[in-house]
Amino acid sequence: MATNESPLFWPAYIKDKVLYVLDETLIPTKVKYIPVKNTKEAVKVIREMKTRAFGQFLVVLNTFLVELKRNKLKGQSLVQAVEKIAQALNASRPTFPFADVTSIVVGWTHKAFKEDVDISSYLEKNIEGFIQGIRYRRLERVAKIAALTRDGDSVLTHCNVSGELAMAAALCQKEKKAVKFFATETRPYFQGAKLTAWELNQVGTQVTLVADNAIASLMKERLVNRVIIGSDRSCANGDIANKIGSYQIAVCAKEFGIPLCVLTQPSNTIKQGKDIPIELRDPKELLSYEGKKIYSPGVKGFYPGFDVVPHELITQSIAIKAGA
Amino acid sequence: MATNESPLFWPAYIKDKVLYVLDETLIPTKVKYIPVKNTKEAVKVIREMKTRAFGQFLVVLNTFLVELKRNKLKGQSLVQAVEKIAQALNASRPTFPFADVTSIVVGWTHKAFKEDVDISSYLEKNIEGFIQGIRYRRLERVAKIAALTRDGDSVLTHCNVSGELAMAAALCQKEKKAVKFFATETRPYFQGAKLTAWELNQVGTQVTLVADNAIASLMKERLVNRVIIGSDRSCANGDIANKIGSYQIAVCAKEFGIPLCVLTQPSNTIKQGKDIPIELRDPKELLSYEGKKIYSPGVKGFYPGFDVVPHELITQSIAIKAGA
Repeated sequence: MATNESPLFWPAYIKDKVLYVLDETLIPTKVKYIPVKNTKEAVKVIREMKTRAFGQFLVVLNTFLVELKRNKLKGQSLVQAVEKIAQALNASRPTFPFADVTSIVVGWTHKAFKEDVDISSYLEKNIEGFIQGIRYRRLERVAKIAALTRDGDSVLTHCNVSGELAMAAALCQKEKKAVKFFATETRPYFQGAKLTAWELNQVGTQVTLVADNAIASLMKERLVNRVIIGSDRSCANGDIANKIGSYQIAVCAKEFGIPLCVLTQPSNTIKQGKDIPIELRDPKELLSYEGKKIYSPGVKGFYPGFDVVPHELITQSIAIKAGA
Repeated sequence: MATNESPLFWPAYIKDKVLYVLDETLIPTKVKYIPVKNTKEAVKVIREMKTRAFGQFLVVLNTFLVELKRNKLKGQSLVQAVEKIAQALNASRPTFPFADVTSIVVGWTHKAFKEDVDISSYLEKNIEGFIQGIRYRRLERVAKIAALTRDGDSVLTHCNVSGELAMAAALCQKEKKAVKFFATETRPYFQGAKLTAWELNQVGTQVTLVADNAIASLMKERLVNRVIIGSDRSCANGDIANKIGSYQIAVCAKEFGIPLCVLTQPSNTIKQGKDIPIELRDPKELLSYEGKKIYSPGVKGFYPGFDVVPHELITQSIAIKAGA
């Protein structure tokens, strides 16, 4: 599978004490990686959405590794440093559950300190193992997505699920299942158009781009028979937060009786959807295109980055337990 | 009211035998009119969406006037010329009911020919009267929209209803009713962002732009309590066609119990929504932004220009009978 791996499936890696983060905003024009040497730079790539979704998870874990490799602290000062890194990462963006991930690393740090083992090597070993475990389970999930889709399916997706859909599409091809995709363009960042359509097209799968406003029309005409989306956050009751637009897709899927499958990372830290903090992005991102201002002065913009899909609207989830 | 009239309310006029058509694609950057001297040029401005919605209606009627003023045909050759103009206009775009309008002019032509009155002056008088009648009824509808909205309302709209909403907003201001608006940007032509947000802002009304994918989120958060949209075509059973995206707004409005008001031009020429021919626009319009190609080669686009809102989802219509 590695040969068919989408760059979006594994958008960050460490080489020579530097973390390289795929700049998703340059795709499909360029596949370029941003060097990240410390927590501050990591927060910047997250906040500016150079990386997003699963990329954030990888960047968070790898930021600890980079800091450990570059700063040879020990004992109490290392514990404090780890806590500071965690705080900075947690404060980068509100909706993705950064604290769910960083608290694991902080927990390991305290454990190592208490048990008087070498904190640095203990953390490196654990974090690397954790990353590899997630990698293994993501590959398993790719296989589950492929198993879910049937010959002749037409799948609607929204935003970008970080390589998993493209790799599942490649698996379907191997199994001679004809599966095609409709991708919403996903305003204002166009992740559907720039990332999803690009990576599905890269693996040779038929993908058709539609505007975010074409959902009911597509479903009414039975041009899609299945929806698969990702999620940025899950609640104990099964509600999920995902890229703004997921909710209206879910409402329409219910109206037209089309099954909605969500790729989740279950978590119990938040009870229900209404408690998820929804990030309000800078309206400038909506009022401009590639840096160019496109609308009248005086017009306001409102751009929540996510919305919440209540669990009642979700037909099926395919879970990876991030904290496990 | 004339001083507060949005250019979009009356986007075409004749001066010195030339029809001037507002180039809606240049707004908000420029308010510029395209000179149209014959049917061929009229079809071009319609097909290229330089004008749209109500503008198409005005262009159609005025095209007959321009042709009558410029070509001094009489008798049978004039009848044939009028029929040819009607055919060309009818074939310009599929969804708007061009034939509903042109057939009236063709009917007048046959009547004048049979009754042996001067066809040209009979047509000019009738068409001009027809246009003024529609103008009067549109102003009436503006007042009805203003009467419908209540102090404190937050109205969601989609695409652009050709000046009526901005003028209704101005009336509400006069009556000291605080009404604010959310406009969808309306991909791919951005009519909501470029036209609706612009004209509402011009009359000093608060307008906030959202992406087309923010509908369910806005409604769930009760940030809007009313939806008002236009329509490009109506059916005998009350189904309407409007800019793609209207259907998903209607589905969400039902889900969240928010009233949906549609501005209609009732017609009995089509029985029900599924019989409305839906225009498929060139996918290039979706795959580019202001002429610049923005997505990967190999990615297809699907861009139906309209969708159909079934009458069951419409809470209220405010009608202008185009054929009356």
